[in-house]
Amino acid sequence: MDVVSFRETTEKYSVIFLDAYGVLKSASGLIDGALETVTSLIDAGKEVFVVTNDSSRSPESMAERYAQQAGGELLPPERYVSSGLLAAEYLDKQIPYGKVAYLGKPESAHYIEIAGKIPVPIADCTVKDHLVAIVLLDDEGFDWFRDVNATLNLIRRMNVPVIVANADITYPMRGNDIAIAVGSLGGLLADITEKTFVRFGKPDSMMFAYAMARAREQLPKVSKRDVLFVGDTLRTDIIGANTYGFDTTLVLSGNILPEQADLMIRTSGIIPTYISDSIAT
Amino acid sequence: MDVVSFRETTEKYSVIFLDAYGVLKSASGLIDGALETVTSLIDAGKEVFVVTNDSSRSPESMAERYAQQAGGELLPPERYVSSGLLAAEYLDKQIPYGKVAYLGKPESAHYIEIAGKIPVPIADCTVKDHLVAIVLLDDEGFDWFRDVNATLNLIRRMNVPVIVANADITYPMRGNDIAIAVGSLGGLLADITEKTFVRFGKPDSMMFAYAMARAREQLPKVSKRDVLFVGDTLRTDIIGANTYGFDTTLVLSGNILPEQADLMIRTSGIIPTYISDSIAT
Amino acid sequence: MDVVSFRETTEKYSVIFLDAYGVLKSASGLIDGALETVTSLIDAGKEVFVVTNDSSRSPESMAERYAQQAGGELLPPERYVSSGLLAAEYLDKQIPYGKVAYLGKPESAHYIEIAGKIPVPIADCTVKDHLVAIVLLDDEGFDWFRDVNATLNLIRRMNVPVIVANADITYPMRGNDIAIAVGSLGGLLADITEKTFVRFGKPDSMMFAYAMARAREQLPKVSKRDVLFVGDTLRTDIIGANTYGFDTTLVLSGNILPEQADLMIRTSGIIPTYISDSIAT
Amino acid sequence: MDVVSFRETTEKYSVIFLDAYGVLKSASGLIDGALETVTSLIDAGKEVFVVTNDSSRSPESMAERYAQQAGGELLPPERYVSSGLLAAEYLDKQIPYGKVAYLGKPESAHYIEIAGKIPVPIADCTVKDHLVAIVLLDDEGFDWFRDVNATLNLIRRMNVPVIVANADITYPMRGNDIAIAVGSLGGLLADITEKTFVRFGKPDSMMFAYAMARAREQLPKVSKRDVLFVGDTLRTDIIGANTYGFDTTLVLSGNILPEQADLMIRTSGIIPTYISDSIAT
Repeated sequence: MDVVSFRETTEKYSVIFLDAYGVLKSASGLIDGALETVTSLIDAGKEVFVVTNDSSRSPESMAERYAQQAGGELLPPERYVSSGLLAAEYLDKQIPYGKVAYLGKPESAHYIEIAGKIPVPIADCTVKDHLVAIVLLDDEGFDWFRDVNATLNLIRRMNVPVIVANADITYPMRGNDIAIAVGSLGGLLADITEKTFVRFGKPDSMMFAYAMARAREQLPKVSKRDVLFVGDTLRTDIIGANTYGFDTTLVLSGNILPEQADLMIRTSGIIPTYISDSIAT
Repeated sequence: MDVVSFRETTEKYSVIFLDAYGVLKSASGLIDGALETVTSLIDAGKEVFVVTNDSSRSPESMAERYAQQAGGELLPPERYVSSGLLAAEYLDKQIPYGKVAYLGKPESAHYIEIAGKIPVPIADCTVKDHLVAIVLLDDEGFDWFRDVNATLNLIRRMNVPVIVANADITYPMRGNDIAIAVGSLGGLLADITEKTFVRFGKPDSMMFAYAMARAREQLPKVSKRDVLFVGDTLRTDIIGANTYGFDTTLVLSGNILPEQADLMIRTSGIIPTYISDSIAT
Repeated sequence: MDVVSFRETTEKYSVIFLDAYGVLKSASGLIDGALETVTSLIDAGKEVFVVTNDSSRSPESMAERYAQQAGGELLPPERYVSSGLLAAEYLDKQIPYGKVAYLGKPESAHYIEIAGKIPVPIADCTVKDHLVAIVLLDDEGFDWFRDVNATLNLIRRMNVPVIVANADITYPMRGNDIAIAVGSLGGLLADITEKTFVRFGKPDSMMFAYAMARAREQLPKVSKRDVLFVGDTLRTDIIGANTYGFDTTLVLSGNILPEQADLMIRTSGIIPTYISDSIAT
Repeated sequence: MDVVSFRETTEKYSVIFLDAYGVLKSASGLIDGALETVTSLIDAGKEVFVVTNDSSRSPESMAERYAQQAGGELLPPERYVSSGLLAAEYLDKQIPYGKVAYLGKPESAHYIEIAGKIPVPIADCTVKDHLVAIVLLDDEGFDWFRDVNATLNLIRRMNVPVIVANADITYPMRGNDIAIAVGSLGGLLADITEKTFVRFGKPDSMMFAYAMARAREQLPKVSKRDVLFVGDTLRTDIIGANTYGFDTTLVLSGNILPEQADLMIRTSGIIPTYISDSIAT
């Protein structure tokens, strides 16, 4: 497939959904030119949202961090759609009031708090606690050896829903390293316990439906055909957005290197609508 | 968990979604009392829909078959939501005009026709054909040995989307036998080719979102809280509906026998809102 | 890795194990030069064996087919080590006398007969039969739709060992096509029934141990270091032989094309001792 | 199946292989009566071996710990067959001299040392090191978050064999808790990197072949029929030993509770030759 200019790929769409890691930012900060691109998309009258599997912090905190890196607001908090919001909605609607054990940094507990439940770090839970759910939010903020094992035993002993608020397997680090995301820890625990967890995040369509509902608040008559989804991974972003009904642009500034793109598309069978080097092009 | 009367579980909901196999019908026809229950739900002012992973026939043909078995219309065609409709929508929006190779009976090709594409049975395809997609619709209507192998080689040679229009693994037959559903054939082919297919059907949330959109056409202000989803399998119906945000009733008239229910809930970690023996209770 | 002459790779080994498909033969017959290579290995005093996951026919019948294609005996029957022999040994030692249901052509039943049990094609079995085991031998010789479904229901209803006599996923056909092997059907049935089957064949080490025992009958003092295993697949032949303790030559005359070899070694992490274009080099 | 006295099940066998965890010992020490049983088996002239997936310590260290718990030697070091010995043999024969990165406690590095290679803890490795292999030996002795992530990135960057010296998923802890074994960490890393690792340990047949070769050193004419394998798990011990050709006793003093045994045998399809409450019976 030909690599085309990102700006051109956006022309016929009124809503642009951008993945975060690998599209807007890398492990070292904002991708060069990302700020200018977002500004010019907004200037061109397009509705821009960030759609991310990150549940380690609140949308407010995300907006703040981007503002720091961009030297000014990139997008307001309500334009950040995270899989943590889906988990929060689930906790709100499907789980009774009570203590929710969680794996993650204290700030990830935001998603439990906005659902009106009581967050308790796994390390502070015992089998004597009356828990209403267990939530995996982030891969940091706890001792893996102690707390992943503790989570395993809590899941075995209690029959409460286990919620994985981020379906990602890995995320990028500096210097082309990667790190194991909380979605992988969820997969490990589900395999061992042979239980089925409640999982949120791309490529599941619910994330795209949630983002679409947000876009409709701005543009009530928008349809799936008016949306372009921009992502850096085939198996999370592109297949999910395509299945839901969005056109897609694969950018080569993250997970997939330019020299790998053709091979990975051919071997995976996942075909984006467009390919661009990055959103800065 | 206690087994309760189905009628009671429906009381506080205005929309009732019923799975087909194991809830409304078995391999030998309508489940005893199903017709009476549907009638009385409608009489009580509730909106009733059938939500099924069956893509072997059109909603019109489904309505007709139920009418034959019930001795009169059970529900009109527009109340049947099948995963085939999601596949048809995908073919309509995401696939250019052209030939679509399919596995299934001729009547399953309905979903390709309503998407405005040209259905061609796998047996009639060669690698020289210019195909725009390959769709797995039904486990019957073709020679498994010849045509599953032919599908494998088409998928390996052509880089076109492969769509699995029914995510089910098995379906019930007479006398407690089961049969391998087309979703299993899709899984087999995806494993061998290491490609990612576009899969439609419960437990993916898109099916529930589609059914919800249909319900909103009748009751524009309906919310997820007003919906009860009724199913006979934990890993398809209950976890999917629960994740999407619906309350659920597990009925013990299909996949799960009454004596297995508690163990299966405990080992799977999937907890329905209610359990009933069948919708006739 | 460098591609070297096959003859050179064999120099320091006294026992040569050759995979069948992709090494000795292709879908169209003996690979060019295979006969000359085997003859010259034997002339050089090396012990040559064919080690194959094929359980569709007896070693005698294999020897005969190669003789037809080679215009004279390639190797005597006792030099053919098939996974069917492991299955037969298992049936002999671990299964009581009685009826064994099987999937495969009539000649594959040889392995049940030499174990002193009564072979019955799946199509002729009912749940009323007193079966002692179910064996998957070959992908041909039965109606897939009818008999794979029948096997599924037999496995669900009877608690007898299920034996998969060939672990292969696919095998090569003419014109670069492939066909689904009986190992894949075994995987499908194990996934659906969630039962653990008894599986024989490479990459499991038992196959290599069995071949080694055969070689010791000829050369009692032979050690693993004296053996070279020659195969065309990384995930079946090379990883299995390497884990067992053999040096390995990957030939590029079958499963892996010359231009793919480096990438597949790098992405799989499976590293052969040598690479050669074919055994004819 | 009936539960029978363990002593009776051993009568017709001259070689007894005992799994360690759940058979000989629990998280709190030797299982009651284990010492007496082992003594009486030896007195009855039987050859007794411990066959374990534990690669966290050397056979000498294992023998010492059992001696401490038993108040005197249970079995001499050469009667402990661990999967670490298979990994050591592999490192010895298949890996050139050099640095081997490892995950585990310092004493697990024993298996790298006896293979004549240089053990280096993962935490002390960088991508600049010239490593010849990476070995996963034990789940303790390192910082999971830091070192599992470091292992992931080493595996991605270096094309060297990755060896998992213990195939276990979990192991028992006090009070019915379990802990994640290093085999699970290996599975997690293999899934993420999509590489194939070299795995040692039950249920793979190599472990049983290795134990058999040890038994032959004592009783040269022993055959598989003379061996009884005693284990507490169906999917590791029983299926592996049965496939290899040993008769088996499932004991209910570890992984499987007495009330679960029948259900687990029926659902898994794995059928032991005998069932006993414990080796003390």
